[in-house]
Amino acid sequence: MFVEALREVVENTDGALAGLLMDFEGIPLESYVKPGASFDIEVLGAEFSVIVKSVQRTVTSLDAGGAKEVAVQADKVTTLIRVLTSDYFVAVALSPDANLGKGRYMLRVAAPKLIEELT
Amino acid sequence: MFVEALREVVENTDGALAGLLMDFEGIPLESYVKPGASFDIEVLGAEFSVIVKSVQRTVTSLDAGGAKEVAVQADKVTTLIRVLTSDYFVAVALSPDANLGKGRYMLRVAAPKLIEELT
Repeated sequence: MFVEALREVVENTDGALAGLLMDFEGIPLESYVKPGASFDIEVLGAEFSVIVKSVQRTVTSLDAGGAKEVAVQADKVTTLIRVLTSDYFVAVALSPDANLGKGRYMLRVAAPKLIEELT
Repeated sequence: MFVEALREVVENTDGALAGLLMDFEGIPLESYVKPGASFDIEVLGAEFSVIVKSVQRTVTSLDAGGAKEVAVQADKVTTLIRVLTSDYFVAVALSPDANLGKGRYMLRVAAPKLIEELT
């Protein structure tokens, strides 16, 4: 089920390379890499779980509400992260020329389904 | 000069609350808060400087190139961060219903001018 949801996000977003469902300890639950893309999404996810955690702490300490979404654009890859629950997040890695808006939309649509299965 | 560039970003982005130029130690160089907005942008900036730093470390260790842009969407505020140099970044805080794309565009346009003055 999880892999189906990740596949849907990746395959319906131009330029998406991989999708990942992971807990904040950095342990992957499920991942989907676009066929042909060589990309270690699990390494990326583990690194970003640390970042999302510190973002959450910061946002909470500022009373700005919980962090819902984090996007990081680097030279070679863009990472979109959406916090699902206090334990899990979903991430998608995209090429720099990817359709970022579509990626955010697809994550937003996938989130309720993922949350339902996680809780 | 710096405050002029920040003012331009904030006043030309629907929903923008404040802009900030800061170094990665968390020390503000200049800030501009939209008249009427009560917002401690410097506290937000100091917290986010830590996050941007860890994002940069992560992205570099993954050989994905330097982090250019980080966006964090929380319930009550969205923060857009654009890395300018190895020492400085510019951030803008927006309300959740703000025009995010316009904010990103305005930061992208302001960046070269800010970099020129910083270096």
